[in-house]
Amino acid sequence: MSIIVQKFGGTSVADAEKIARAARRAIRTKLAGHQVVMVLSAMGKTTDHLVALANEVNPDPPQREMDMLLTTGEQVSISLMAMAISAAGHEAISFTGGQVGLVTDSAHTKARIRSIDAQRIHSQLDAGKVVIVAGFQGITEEGAITTLGRGGSDTTAVALAAVLQAAECEIYTDVDGVYTTDPRIVPQARKMNYISYDEMLELASLGAGVMHSRSIEFGKKYNVPIHVRSSLTDAKGTFIVAETPGMEQIVVRGVTLKRDLARVELVGVPNEPGLAARIFARIAEHNIVVDDIIQNVYEQGRKANIGFTTTLADVKEARVLCQQLCNELGIRDVETDENVAKISIVGIGMKTHTGVASRMFKALGEAKINIQNISTSEIVIGCLIDKKDGEQAVRLLHEAFELDKAPANNE
Amino acid sequence: MSIIVQKFGGTSVADAEKIARAARRAIRTKLAGHQVVMVLSAMGKTTDHLVALANEVNPDPPQREMDMLLTTGEQVSISLMAMAISAAGHEAISFTGGQVGLVTDSAHTKARIRSIDAQRIHSQLDAGKVVIVAGFQGITEEGAITTLGRGGSDTTAVALAAVLQAAECEIYTDVDGVYTTDPRIVPQARKMNYISYDEMLELASLGAGVMHSRSIEFGKKYNVPIHVRSSLTDAKGTFIVAETPGMEQIVVRGVTLKRDLARVELVGVPNEPGLAARIFARIAEHNIVVDDIIQNVYEQGRKANIGFTTTLADVKEARVLCQQLCNELGIRDVETDENVAKISIVGIGMKTHTGVASRMFKALGEAKINIQNISTSEIVIGCLIDKKDGEQAVRLLHEAFELDKAPANNE
Repeated sequence: MSIIVQKFGGTSVADAEKIARAARRAIRTKLAGHQVVMVLSAMGKTTDHLVALANEVNPDPPQREMDMLLTTGEQVSISLMAMAISAAGHEAISFTGGQVGLVTDSAHTKARIRSIDAQRIHSQLDAGKVVIVAGFQGITEEGAITTLGRGGSDTTAVALAAVLQAAECEIYTDVDGVYTTDPRIVPQARKMNYISYDEMLELASLGAGVMHSRSIEFGKKYNVPIHVRSSLTDAKGTFIVAETPGMEQIVVRGVTLKRDLARVELVGVPNEPGLAARIFARIAEHNIVVDDIIQNVYEQGRKANIGFTTTLADVKEARVLCQQLCNELGIRDVETDENVAKISIVGIGMKTHTGVASRMFKALGEAKINIQNISTSEIVIGCLIDKKDGEQAVRLLHEAFELDKAPANNE
Repeated sequence: MSIIVQKFGGTSVADAEKIARAARRAIRTKLAGHQVVMVLSAMGKTTDHLVALANEVNPDPPQREMDMLLTTGEQVSISLMAMAISAAGHEAISFTGGQVGLVTDSAHTKARIRSIDAQRIHSQLDAGKVVIVAGFQGITEEGAITTLGRGGSDTTAVALAAVLQAAECEIYTDVDGVYTTDPRIVPQARKMNYISYDEMLELASLGAGVMHSRSIEFGKKYNVPIHVRSSLTDAKGTFIVAETPGMEQIVVRGVTLKRDLARVELVGVPNEPGLAARIFARIAEHNIVVDDIIQNVYEQGRKANIGFTTTLADVKEARVLCQQLCNELGIRDVETDENVAKISIVGIGMKTHTGVASRMFKALGEAKINIQNISTSEIVIGCLIDKKDGEQAVRLLHEAFELDKAPANNE
């Protein structure tokens, strides 16, 4: 009998009616002959409410106590779900993270999973019950309650699917899958049937919500088929799976736009070994988020311009810090630009297809969209452009790579 | 260094301000040279809110899941309290019932404590921390979360005080102690400085709120000094302690009035061995609450009248049941009266003083208050009277036994 893990996010368990709907879905899956493990987030805005309560009491609460507080949200969801399944005449049992032996390190608020004791879940499944596990939470060897950080419930679901050797890990959400780009920008955006772990990882890190990078990494590492789908319909969503040879037929899988970026440019940096390291060590000390780093040398390699992107929230502090660095390290100047956006195309097909970058640059160039910085990785090409050109660029590239057309092999 | 256990009820931790006030109290106690263990209930109306949520999902929820749900309330309180103490610059650590090894049987929603592992608390106290424990909850040997039923947080506090050999268990509440009677009925009612466990047990069972019987039983068994006091002031409240010889000087400690009672009278019962047992077994089968039972025989012991009191909620069902019993057992008639109240006087001094009952009957008789049934135990005399006479009777007896006057030995 195959095991299906079903993860429901906060919006999918936001009230009694939605809980009942999720319960019916689990029961249908069970009646179809599967063993079902549900992983739940906290209901709707519960976590926000708890964070607000904590801030009233202490603006800088101890992280251990924050974990103690926030984990109550998932505990409420799982008990209500067990009650809902029971009300529908089926057997269910709820478990906290600690109760299923989801052991983590002791890094409160961002703990990492060390081990999961699958036995307790297997024995309840074998007894015919739907097993309901609190997402986002674990326990240390010493018994302290921890949380897994952003996207933690997805990580719980995928990790459980891995140790239970589940046939599938279903991620229920309020969208019906992963799209070629944001449908609010491009109405022709198409829901994908399949996407590889690596592509999904890039999409996630480029700001396409749906799932958090860490859970996808977990899925890739243990080869867990992940199915992102809507909690409102029975339609299939998007399967996140290992790369297959057929997938490379599709050169570009999606287009993303990352706003809220700012560019910082250090101009005229003496190009000496170790200087870049000193610069970015100092920036890291101040917890400034750095996205791409691009360096070009000139004057026969004696000088360099070093550019990096950061968030709008961090740019002011970054500028002050870089001005100090100018004085200390003999850098000529620092420039910042708060009106930038990053447009990226993602696709494992790039590994074997040529001319992808030039097609991208041509499409942008024909529309007179100026490219500031370019960064590439094996399956991503990203361009920093003017913020005002962002949405137009998404539409152009979506069309240029014909992303609205379903691929021939239905992938 | 002596240990003080401080228990705060739901109204005393109802919002951020009240949490901060309770935190300051614990810190003051610590700075005065004590080790402090706090036991908390859920904030304000949290439990009611959770019960309502459960009922939306399932009108008859599984008890295990109810415990899973309700215990989140105390977990929220303890984490916020630890944050509040930390905000005030002191160290604190919160623990769920399971984390302090409060092991119970598996009777969900009304579990009984089997053992508590004191070591974990001692080591944190010795490290200089205020230890904050979730009231009302425990864990089974198998790791399932349980609750202790009504008044459970008081029981947790008194049990912890017992195993930690605390100098005192302070119960903080919204009244400033235990009164000789309800001050809303008798403005002259006096806050007692001391009361014995047995007297407090009788007061609790006679409907004087403040504390639940089970926690007082625990205090008596392990001789834990309990101090019931207000969370709003620094004034001393009432100490619940073991009986001392001096205590017997006070003949009557308090007067209670129990309303919402009904009387059922079986008239003309054939007085045969085993008949009463058959009657009350049948009543128990239907979960009808029975308070006092009084039987008088007549016709040279051949006939008996058997009266009992029950709640207004149960009396209709009790009447139907008793009419069936009349037919089956040859009982002549059944009468019910829904307009009764029970007035009781409580005091360990009764054990050694005579004439207490006659003083009570005289006071009632002079005011033309008719006594229906009388029941007595070693330290209680209770009379069933007309409901309309209830409050007047309380005032009369409070005055007759001079309860407004402080005892000479200040007890």
